Amino acid sequence: MIPTIEWQGQHVRMVDQRKLPSKVEWYICRGYKDVINAIEKMVIRGAPAIGVAAAMGLALGARSIRAKTVPDFTARFKEIGEEMFHARPTAVNLRWAIERMIGLVEKMSDHPADAIKTSLRQESEKILAEDIQINRKMGMNGQGLIPEGATILTHCNAGSLATGGYGTALGVIRAAHERGKKIQVIADETRPWLQGLRLTAFELMEDGIPVSVIADNAAGSLMRQKRIDLVITGADRIAANGDVANKIGTYQVAVLAKTHKIPFYVAAPLSTIDPTVKNGDLIPVEQRGPEEICRFGKLQVGPPGVMALNPAFDITPCKYVSAIITEKGVIKPPFRTGIKNQLGDSYSP
Amino acid sequence: MIPTIEWQGQHVRMVDQRKLPSKVEWYICRGYKDVINAIEKMVIRGAPAIGVAAAMGLALGARSIRAKTVPDFTARFKEIGEEMFHARPTAVNLRWAIERMIGLVEKMSDHPADAIKTSLRQESEKILAEDIQINRKMGMNGQGLIPEGATILTHCNAGSLATGGYGTALGVIRAAHERGKKIQVIADETRPWLQGLRLTAFELMEDGIPVSVIADNAAGSLMRQKRIDLVITGADRIAANGDVANKIGTYQVAVLAKTHKIPFYVAAPLSTIDPTVKNGDLIPVEQRGPEEICRFGKLQVGPPGVMALNPAFDITPCKYVSAIITEKGVIKPPFRTGIKNQLGDSYSP
Repeated sequence: MIPTIEWQGQHVRMVDQRKLPSKVEWYICRGYKDVINAIEKMVIRGAPAIGVAAAMGLALGARSIRAKTVPDFTARFKEIGEEMFHARPTAVNLRWAIERMIGLVEKMSDHPADAIKTSLRQESEKILAEDIQINRKMGMNGQGLIPEGATILTHCNAGSLATGGYGTALGVIRAAHERGKKIQVIADETRPWLQGLRLTAFELMEDGIPVSVIADNAAGSLMRQKRIDLVITGADRIAANGDVANKIGTYQVAVLAKTHKIPFYVAAPLSTIDPTVKNGDLIPVEQRGPEEICRFGKLQVGPPGVMALNPAFDITPCKYVSAIITEKGVIKPPFRTGIKNQLGDSYSP
Repeated sequence: MIPTIEWQGQHVRMVDQRKLPSKVEWYICRGYKDVINAIEKMVIRGAPAIGVAAAMGLALGARSIRAKTVPDFTARFKEIGEEMFHARPTAVNLRWAIERMIGLVEKMSDHPADAIKTSLRQESEKILAEDIQINRKMGMNGQGLIPEGATILTHCNAGSLATGGYGTALGVIRAAHERGKKIQVIADETRPWLQGLRLTAFELMEDGIPVSVIADNAAGSLMRQKRIDLVITGADRIAANGDVANKIGTYQVAVLAKTHKIPFYVAAPLSTIDPTVKNGDLIPVEQRGPEEICRFGKLQVGPPGVMALNPAFDITPCKYVSAIITEKGVIKPPFRTGIKNQLGDSYSP
C-alpha cells in the first residue's frame, strides 16, 4: 500500500489523493504553509490523516522559527498552530494534533529551541506510528461485529489513505478479511469527490478484498433487496453524546440502515471524539464551493452559472448508530457513558 | 425550450441529451433502428419521451416496409414493434406507444399500406401533441399541492426533455411558477448520468425558476435541516397498487421524505401506469454497464477493472407515495381504487 504521508529527509511528502488511482504523484511540503494548502485543497483528507499532517506541518513550521528566546519561540509556534487549525473546520483530529504538539512545547519550556524542534519532529513520527497501531487495535476490536460471509456497505474512504495506514472502517474490514472471513464490500462512490470509487475500491482491490462500487443512489435499493448486511463508516468528529459528523451522505445511509434494520457502525480513534461538543448540531460543517459539483476536473458539466449547495459533511444523530468502534473497544448505546469511560482522564467537557 | 423530439421532413430528430447542456447537437433518425439505438444509448430518455420516440420510430419503420399485402405489412410492422420493445425494459410508455401504433394498423386493415403509413406518421405527431397537453393538465392538477414559497426537491429529470414538452414533475413545478408562487427547486444531480445537474438545472434556469443542484448525498441532510418542503418526481412505470419504478435513488429519497414527514409526490401520465403488474417488484429493472459509474466520458476515474453494480431504476413501494398526479387528477391512497377509476375502460389487469 502507498504510504499516505511520511517524512522524506527534511520534507514531508504525501500522495496526492486528488489524482489517485490513475496517477501516483507526491506532493512535497517544504514548510507548514504547504501542509495547510494540502489539507485545504484535499491533497490529503480523512480525519486521522489530517491529524498526522497537522503534526508534521507544525514540526516543519517549528523549524523555520527564528526566535531569540523560548517564550518567543512558543508564542510563534502557537500562531502557526492557530493558522493550521483553520485549514478545515470539521475533523477534530486537526485540533487534537495541534494541542498535542503545543502541549509538548509547553512541557519542554526549559529546553533550548533546537531540542524542542527535534522533539516536535519525533512527536509527529510517533503520532503517525501510533495511528497505525490504533487502527490495528480498532480492527481487532471491530472485526467481531462482522459475520462470516457478510456484505458490507461503506461510504467515502476510511481506509489506509484516510489515516496513517490500515484505516478505521476499512481497518475493521481488513481485520475480518485477515481472519479468513469471506466478506465482500459495496463502496458508495461518494460524490462529489468520489473517494469511494477512487480510493476505497483501489485500496480493497490491492488487498484482494472483493469490492463493487455503486452510485450513492443505489444504497437504499440494495438494502431493500437484502443485499447489504451491515454498514461501517469512519467519522470526522464524534460529539459527547455519540452524534457523528462524517462525509456528506453518511446521515442518509444511517437512516436507510435503520429503516431496513441493518446495523450501522462507526469506527474512529478516540482522537476523533470531541467531549467539548454536547451534540452533533454544535459541530461546524464545512461548506465547499459549487464547482466541486458542477465541474469535473476542468470540464464544465452543469449549465454555466448554476448554483449548488455543497456541504462536505453531515451529522448522524446517535440514535442511528449501532456501535462506535475505537482502539479501546466497542461502545454500545448509551454512548455518553461509554465515551466517558473510554476517554477517562482526557474527558473534559 | 429546445424541442425534445420532432419530425423534420422525412426524418425524426432529437436533441442529444448526453451532450446537454454544453452542446446542442441533433441526432437524426433516418430509420427505426436509429431510434432504437437512440433509446438504448440514452440520446433520448424519460418515460414519456421514450413513448413518443417509439411511435415516431415505428412510423419510420413502417415507411421502409416493402410488403405486397396488408397482412404481410402488418406482420412485418409487428416485428419492428417487437424489436423496439426491447430497447429499454423499465419504462412502460414504450410498450404503450407500440401497442397504440399496432392498434391503429389493425384498425386500418382494409386500407392500402400507403394510407396506413401516412396515418402512422400522423398518429406519432398526435402522440407528441397529446403528451404536451397531458403534461399541462398534470401541471394544473398538481400545482395545488405546492404551497407558496415552497422549496421542492426533485430527482433526475422529469421535465420538458423527458417528455414531448413541459414535463411531468417539472410541469407541476412550472404550473406553480406560472401561477406566481415564489418557489425554489433543489435538484439532485442524479448519478450516474447527472440528469439533474445537466438537464433539470438547465431547464429551470431557462425558465427563470430558482434552482440549486446538490450531490445526491445531501438530500437527507437538507431534509433534516427542514430545508425541503416536498418532493416531486416522475415515474417510469407505476404498478396497479401504486408502487413506482423510477430513476435509481428515488426509493431512498422517498424513504427519507417519510422519515422527515415531507410529502413525496409522483407526477406521471396514465400511459405510465401498468395495470398488468400487480406490484412494483414485478417490474423489470434495467441493469446498465459499470462504465457509467467508473468512467467519466472517456476518462477512467475508478481503478482499472473495478466492478460496479449499476441498476438504472428502483422501486418505491406505494406506502412512501403521498399522491400520484395524472392528467385526470390527483390520486391519493389507496392507489388501487384511484388508479382503477382513472383508467376506466383501459384498466385490464
